[in-house]
Amino acid sequence: MLVSEMSRGECEDLLARIGYGCLGCARKDQPYVVPIYFAAAPGLLYGFATVGQKIEWMRLNPLVCLEAHEVLNDTEWASVVVQGRYEEFPDTPQYAQERREAQSQLEKARLLWWKTGLSAAQARWRFDRDRTVFYCIHVEEISGRRASHDPVERK
Amino acid sequence: MLVSEMSRGECEDLLARIGYGCLGCARKDQPYVVPIYFAAAPGLLYGFATVGQKIEWMRLNPLVCLEAHEVLNDTEWASVVVQGRYEEFPDTPQYAQERREAQSQLEKARLLWWKTGLSAAQARWRFDRDRTVFYCIHVEEISGRRASHDPVERK
Repeated sequence: MLVSEMSRGECEDLLARIGYGCLGCARKDQPYVVPIYFAAAPGLLYGFATVGQKIEWMRLNPLVCLEAHEVLNDTEWASVVVQGRYEEFPDTPQYAQERREAQSQLEKARLLWWKTGLSAAQARWRFDRDRTVFYCIHVEEISGRRASHDPVERK
Repeated sequence: MLVSEMSRGECEDLLARIGYGCLGCARKDQPYVVPIYFAAAPGLLYGFATVGQKIEWMRLNPLVCLEAHEVLNDTEWASVVVQGRYEEFPDTPQYAQERREAQSQLEKARLLWWKTGLSAAQARWRFDRDRTVFYCIHVEEISGRRASHDPVERK
């Protein structure tokens, strides 16, 4: 198996194609990692969630990390890591344009983007629009590694 | 889609079956998330890696989080989150038994467990046993959520 670094363009292509990854946030040095759907735009990842531990922690500390990967088999895979910063789009006139853009990008990226958030809300409380959040991750660093089959490797 | 909490036993079964997840560590409130292979034993997850950012950060701050999931389709999936503590097994007589146990569990769990670590090492430097690490994550909290199809839901 050969492992090589991916270019920024290759990383961005993977994020746009996959739209799914593991988001890490942290509070008092304790990391917390959960899977999320996202829509990738230049320099940004848009997301939607219900308020819970992830959102509460990102409000307190906006530094986040997202990992996304695609796996063909054990020796052919690619993994992208984004270091970024959380920004919430509150339901106020000031953020109306950002919320429309987030929703539009999420709808383009994945029809079911809202299902996870709403089912989580319905499981715990009656749906309440104050408990749902549009947000983005500003991409500050991005890197990726790709593994490929090594033709001279012994099995 | 219905979302329900998983029991501890269901969470442990998923970890043992999947053996693959996203590990989050943190330094100065900056989270870092990378995919890892692991072998699940009661109360522990065993891992193997080359020394790099993940290991360096966990040496400085042993608080970690691991997320593992299995996805059948958009409305049928399960996700388990572990909060834990990193412990390294140095190549010294004191840790010989822990290293043998880690290697044995990793071999049982997955034949290719060593490939990712060694390929990373080979890509950057000649293989050096001082640069490879056996470790475990002590499981301190575990929780999981499972989504299933809702028979009365409108499409």
